[in-house]
Amino acid sequence: MKKCIITISRQYGSGGRQIGRKLSDELAIPFYDKEVIDLAAKESGLAVDFIRGQEQQLTQSLLFSIVTNFTTASSGAFNPNMLSLSDQVYLAEAKAIRDLADKGPCVIVGRCADYILRDTADCLKVFIHADLAFRAHRIVEVYGEREQSPEERLRDKDKRRAAYHRFYTNMKWGHAQNYHLTLDSGVIGIDKWVDIIAALY
Amino acid sequence: MKKCIITISRQYGSGGRQIGRKLSDELAIPFYDKEVIDLAAKESGLAVDFIRGQEQQLTQSLLFSIVTNFTTASSGAFNPNMLSLSDQVYLAEAKAIRDLADKGPCVIVGRCADYILRDTADCLKVFIHADLAFRAHRIVEVYGEREQSPEERLRDKDKRRAAYHRFYTNMKWGHAQNYHLTLDSGVIGIDKWVDIIAALY
Repeated sequence: MKKCIITISRQYGSGGRQIGRKLSDELAIPFYDKEVIDLAAKESGLAVDFIRGQEQQLTQSLLFSIVTNFTTASSGAFNPNMLSLSDQVYLAEAKAIRDLADKGPCVIVGRCADYILRDTADCLKVFIHADLAFRAHRIVEVYGEREQSPEERLRDKDKRRAAYHRFYTNMKWGHAQNYHLTLDSGVIGIDKWVDIIAALY
Repeated sequence: MKKCIITISRQYGSGGRQIGRKLSDELAIPFYDKEVIDLAAKESGLAVDFIRGQEQQLTQSLLFSIVTNFTTASSGAFNPNMLSLSDQVYLAEAKAIRDLADKGPCVIVGRCADYILRDTADCLKVFIHADLAFRAHRIVEVYGEREQSPEERLRDKDKRRAAYHRFYTNMKWGHAQNYHLTLDSGVIGIDKWVDIIAALY
């Protein structure tokens, strides 16, 4: 089976972005992470900072999405003016992801890319995770996050990502069946996994 | 991190047992599947056919386990005579798995081995899955199962295994975080995965 796009979903602090970046270097194909925001902003007219802000606070805007969708469903009519901020960002990013994938083989990190591309591209779908201790160490040492208990921050991020993914894809985030490959970056090591995924690709 | 034991959990029909067998050949280490039943029978005094029967009908005996545990918890006293058949088989197999793991590096398929060995061995924990179409084809072509709709049988097996695993380990079967590696055998192919796991080991 030909695989053109590698989509990487990952737990915060697991090193998923780093694995994606190294993969793109090793395979000499583009790497898209923040680039999705830039393109979504350009094509939708939304500001880059606005999209970034929405991504940071996923749950609040999701709550509005749920209320909006419930109201829309009750009234029996779809009203595009009632799209929540979260919906608008999701749709803008989804279009950006499809446009980037159309250009050719690449690595795309996060933003439900595996789901968004399910009918239009051959994807190798990867999920990367690690235990709390490994991730806590990384977000303090690598990201320099020291304001909040790292474990607390990780649990909060996990919850938000799972809720976001569930809401827009109706699939369970981190459930093996939704990916071709899931891996623990804490035990096997980031570089080893890069080699393995590259070999699979 | 040194890994001595490879534990393989798998969806029915995914080829997990075949991957385990090939791995054991490639790594020249023992492979334990039905051997766990033989040893559990020998050590516990339970009959091989009895254990096999219990494994086949997981849910019925689980139901009794739940009722028994509830009754025991309500009465506030643990009564070993109240162990359900499912509990007895689980405990006998758990002891057999620990004994087999004590002998040295090996591949063990199923029976919550990853959980049972969590404190006593270095395990590379693998979960193998595939979509319904791939598995349905395999259980008809490879196992020769033609009496029931293959999809129906697979859904039933998945439910039973998930319930069994959840009951005895309190962990979600097939959730990426519970394994070092999960893989889709239908997309990448069984032989390719054997090479990759062997390389990781």
